[in-house]
Amino acid sequence: METIKTAVLGASGYTGIELLRLLFAHPAVEVSAITSRANAGQALSSGLPRFKGVEGADIEFIMPDMEAVVATGAQTAFLALPHGMAADYALPLLEKGLRVIDLSADFRLNDAAVYEEFYGQAHPAPEWLPKAVYGMPELYRDEIAASQLIASPGCYPTSIILPLVPLLRAGLLDTKSLVVSSLSGVSGAGRTASLPIIFSEVNESLRAYGLPKHRHLSEIEQELSLAAGEQVMITFTPHLVPVTRGIHSTITASLKGSFEEVTAALEAAYQDEPFVRLLGAGVAADTANVTRTNFVDVGWHHDQRTNRLVLTSAEDNLTKGASGQAVQSFNLLHDLPATTGLMNL
Amino acid sequence: METIKTAVLGASGYTGIELLRLLFAHPAVEVSAITSRANAGQALSSGLPRFKGVEGADIEFIMPDMEAVVATGAQTAFLALPHGMAADYALPLLEKGLRVIDLSADFRLNDAAVYEEFYGQAHPAPEWLPKAVYGMPELYRDEIAASQLIASPGCYPTSIILPLVPLLRAGLLDTKSLVVSSLSGVSGAGRTASLPIIFSEVNESLRAYGLPKHRHLSEIEQELSLAAGEQVMITFTPHLVPVTRGIHSTITASLKGSFEEVTAALEAAYQDEPFVRLLGAGVAADTANVTRTNFVDVGWHHDQRTNRLVLTSAEDNLTKGASGQAVQSFNLLHDLPATTGLMNL
Amino acid sequence: METIKTAVLGASGYTGIELLRLLFAHPAVEVSAITSRANAGQALSSGLPRFKGVEGADIEFIMPDMEAVVATGAQTAFLALPHGMAADYALPLLEKGLRVIDLSADFRLNDAAVYEEFYGQAHPAPEWLPKAVYGMPELYRDEIAASQLIASPGCYPTSIILPLVPLLRAGLLDTKSLVVSSLSGVSGAGRTASLPIIFSEVNESLRAYGLPKHRHLSEIEQELSLAAGEQVMITFTPHLVPVTRGIHSTITASLKGSFEEVTAALEAAYQDEPFVRLLGAGVAADTANVTRTNFVDVGWHHDQRTNRLVLTSAEDNLTKGASGQAVQSFNLLHDLPATTGLMNL
Amino acid sequence: METIKTAVLGASGYTGIELLRLLFAHPAVEVSAITSRANAGQALSSGLPRFKGVEGADIEFIMPDMEAVVATGAQTAFLALPHGMAADYALPLLEKGLRVIDLSADFRLNDAAVYEEFYGQAHPAPEWLPKAVYGMPELYRDEIAASQLIASPGCYPTSIILPLVPLLRAGLLDTKSLVVSSLSGVSGAGRTASLPIIFSEVNESLRAYGLPKHRHLSEIEQELSLAAGEQVMITFTPHLVPVTRGIHSTITASLKGSFEEVTAALEAAYQDEPFVRLLGAGVAADTANVTRTNFVDVGWHHDQRTNRLVLTSAEDNLTKGASGQAVQSFNLLHDLPATTGLMNL
Repeated sequence: METIKTAVLGASGYTGIELLRLLFAHPAVEVSAITSRANAGQALSSGLPRFKGVEGADIEFIMPDMEAVVATGAQTAFLALPHGMAADYALPLLEKGLRVIDLSADFRLNDAAVYEEFYGQAHPAPEWLPKAVYGMPELYRDEIAASQLIASPGCYPTSIILPLVPLLRAGLLDTKSLVVSSLSGVSGAGRTASLPIIFSEVNESLRAYGLPKHRHLSEIEQELSLAAGEQVMITFTPHLVPVTRGIHSTITASLKGSFEEVTAALEAAYQDEPFVRLLGAGVAADTANVTRTNFVDVGWHHDQRTNRLVLTSAEDNLTKGASGQAVQSFNLLHDLPATTGLMNL
Repeated sequence: METIKTAVLGASGYTGIELLRLLFAHPAVEVSAITSRANAGQALSSGLPRFKGVEGADIEFIMPDMEAVVATGAQTAFLALPHGMAADYALPLLEKGLRVIDLSADFRLNDAAVYEEFYGQAHPAPEWLPKAVYGMPELYRDEIAASQLIASPGCYPTSIILPLVPLLRAGLLDTKSLVVSSLSGVSGAGRTASLPIIFSEVNESLRAYGLPKHRHLSEIEQELSLAAGEQVMITFTPHLVPVTRGIHSTITASLKGSFEEVTAALEAAYQDEPFVRLLGAGVAADTANVTRTNFVDVGWHHDQRTNRLVLTSAEDNLTKGASGQAVQSFNLLHDLPATTGLMNL
Repeated sequence: METIKTAVLGASGYTGIELLRLLFAHPAVEVSAITSRANAGQALSSGLPRFKGVEGADIEFIMPDMEAVVATGAQTAFLALPHGMAADYALPLLEKGLRVIDLSADFRLNDAAVYEEFYGQAHPAPEWLPKAVYGMPELYRDEIAASQLIASPGCYPTSIILPLVPLLRAGLLDTKSLVVSSLSGVSGAGRTASLPIIFSEVNESLRAYGLPKHRHLSEIEQELSLAAGEQVMITFTPHLVPVTRGIHSTITASLKGSFEEVTAALEAAYQDEPFVRLLGAGVAADTANVTRTNFVDVGWHHDQRTNRLVLTSAEDNLTKGASGQAVQSFNLLHDLPATTGLMNL
Repeated sequence: METIKTAVLGASGYTGIELLRLLFAHPAVEVSAITSRANAGQALSSGLPRFKGVEGADIEFIMPDMEAVVATGAQTAFLALPHGMAADYALPLLEKGLRVIDLSADFRLNDAAVYEEFYGQAHPAPEWLPKAVYGMPELYRDEIAASQLIASPGCYPTSIILPLVPLLRAGLLDTKSLVVSSLSGVSGAGRTASLPIIFSEVNESLRAYGLPKHRHLSEIEQELSLAAGEQVMITFTPHLVPVTRGIHSTITASLKGSFEEVTAALEAAYQDEPFVRLLGAGVAADTANVTRTNFVDVGWHHDQRTNRLVLTSAEDNLTKGASGQAVQSFNLLHDLPATTGLMNL
């Protein structure tokens, strides 16, 4: 298998670490550059001992200098950075012809005004929005393969959009009735210390947060609206719970079609998708079955008493919810089989 | 303070243990009998070393022989047993004149047919249903004080009924729009070993269960319907999450009234209640603040985009969700201040 | 019961919070002042919602101004502050005649040179060292009652000193053979955010730290040496493990006396102590039985193959390991029954 | 790469599941048979949904019928069964010429009398003991490659034997001074429900168990004695702590040689071993760096005050402590590179 030189920018956060975990085991990848302002000059394994002795991991962090990244021969760069950094990081790489898979929110929204509404700042590079593709391979396979700039989706959005899109496309749900309750592991809050996420505050704690207008609503509603062919707005309550990894979403909606049509629509959409596992009617998802994998599990129940559909989905927030999905796009970009490097458990 | 001899039947499960924790610290209680078929003849502290050396805890388990319980002079008995045991345990005690606080589901429903629908067996003592009071002091204070038989509420129901009742009474919610997502600690699954609740299966797992018709729906909908003055049906999704104690409920409903009326109705209902803590508009509940207390915390948000109300509530499933609430009824029964023995953190 | 006005300095860390938990339930205490530089001017329950609605907890943080503390009428002050602050906080209070129970390390060591060796700074108030009493009631009951300045012991030391002192006094152990391995919950690392203690770094992690010369060795060896009548040095390995509360110590030593003499010495020393629970020969301690209590549980085994004694002890690092033990000293200081306010589970 | 048909007997426990996780990703393995008495006739992924959609995992459990296992063409069989089953399972396979890697204790001890002493029953196949090799590749590489029957080591033993053997061979430790304190994740207790390992009993619990003569002592002392050239006995205290995976061992011993010689001996022994990661002097091991890998991390400190060595080691109890190490032996048996299939994180 040909080897593709690849850079990871922002390699010391949890999504960056997860990218490295996947890329070191990926048969077509050579990690040529990893950047971290805080760790520049250090060996990867000194700051992150988990990588000590791993094949391919004998590499040093460099400063986030885009010239230096390009000089390593990188053909593709993953950006695992906070939002708002697109202008500084992505643009120089794009201009040099690299392909960029950005895991931040900067290029996920089609509309710069929505970005400003939800992220509280003007978009740093609005001219690139029309060229970026929302990196959800199950929805945009061909567009991803042909694009230079992939906006890899957020963790909550993946768990909500994938189960709903086929049903909205088929007109099976009352679009005004969507209510979502999601649970997230603490790694979703990032690898920066703050009091609310220290162990003693999280252990034995269950709490909602981000109410009533979490930033991820912007991309969720964008994709749901595209699927429904009309403006969709949902009520979304995320919760922080004491697991490290995993997102579980419970989605309720009033049925317009029959429950059997729901099953049929999901099966038609996903029966050949390697990473969407349909658990079937009457089965509930469990994050324990998906952590450290790129699978998203989807189950569905019919609440006949109220004629509501209850969808449950489970994914790993760092894998299918972030870095695994980004590698899935990488495989499409480089014309590799979709599951390359993503089937290790 | 006068001392009331009190029995705990089924003292080796988590709700029984929690009752003992509270009763040993209760200034008006002498625990005169504890029963456990499995542990009869053993000292309490040999099976449950946590109680070793605790004042009042130097007591032995006896067999669940109602004659023997009565012979200890017990005036009130708590029943911390599985449902379906009412005929064998409660009736003999009631006939002897004891007051009974039953923590099972056996006397919570007004209608024996609903019991049979949800619990899959004929009601064991339907003649007592009209005499039993649903033991939620905030709703039935006077009835509890006057009753011989208290049906102490379930854990999920407490977290859902308390926030909703004032709003339904005031007609502020669209009663067809109620969707509830709840999270429960593992102690809610009881103290009997089974594979799905061993540590290695629960840790790093998030899962829904009991879909779409959990048994607790029966009492939830009974009380919501009484408050609304019409039949209310909700969609309810419980989840098992890796904490030992705590229930968090997220309740969404379409608003018919204004958000300000919601705040006013909650404050009017609960401002003088010692165990309902209104967190206020825009604040979310966290179980970390209520574990091992009899408080239920309630916060509320307005999702203006969809005009939905989002209520969050947090309680300890074993305290306000079970044994603490039962002691609260005990205090009413015996004309004690409501908070007696329930304010230790 | 007469009420004693009491101040808690440094009330927003975990030991301060635990002190408040205990003091609000203590029948002889009125908390007259709580200080916190960060939270001054705020209601206690706004920063720490757990205390909302708790009797006695309707109080505001003030700045750590010793004049202001004295002005509240406080007779006794608990200092829950980092080491090195004695000169600024304790001395002004002592000069005003208050009794001071210091939970830091500042007054635990008899020798200022040892303090400097282990804490890396000159002792801030060496003239007070001879007047301070090591606040372990089981060892220094009378001295505590008569003292103005109590140096409340550290968490690890309590779990190690209590099991060993009677055996060293009786000459039953080879003093050159002591090896201790301890496990601590994360609350022992304090309530200040840092990367190594965020949930995602602690969960599924087991690690030793502080090797080979943890600061607590200084007080451990001071008290063991006093008991043995000779200089004792031990090897001590603390570990951080994913629980919030609890310390477990496993202590091994070569036996000089018989195993029966061990049992006899422990029973003679502790049979009448309310907070030392002797589990007996052949029984191992479990922190699950002591969390949120002031008990320390002690078990012991004979490894006949090597003729070593294996002692296991369990305590709550915040209760018997810190704040509970401090309240135990408070009771002695004020001539109250030892268990006052400390028997709630 | 040639494909080797491989059977896993006892595939529904945690070590069996871990074997499958590794084998499905192993480029030279085809899993031809998986047995489970409880699940026979079911698809693997119906009982263990984690494997749904995984390449190679579309297989059904069969009954543990050795004829049927052989009929699948299996050349090598892993036995992930309780001890005592050797006669029924291993012998028929050995007689048919298969190579057997047994993860139970049945063939680990050279002496059937020691087996009977520690396991409380006569050895089921003593004639095979001389032919079995203790499957620790770092110690018995050549013997494993040449053997038909591999006795794969226990989890605690691996974490204790590997750090100590080079030091004992070099005569650097006082062999009478060895004291070991180990911490184990709950998966080490197996995948069978019992009260002490349900979540609510394990969470916030720290406890020693198996004192003073845990079964693993037998193989630990066998290998340490062989290394030292004299009978070695140690004091060993295992603890159960609330993590799912991971073993941490803290080993103390009085030094006979210098600390520098310790470092030199460890480096000489392990510098070329792919799975032993020497962290170096003054660094402590952390299980968080090894879970789901086949690495064992080893650090060492000098307690100069007592002239003791403190070794810390960390491994995953299911990988290097069980199934990963067994696959490492498998690679040797089949002349594959040592790290084949074992470098995925």
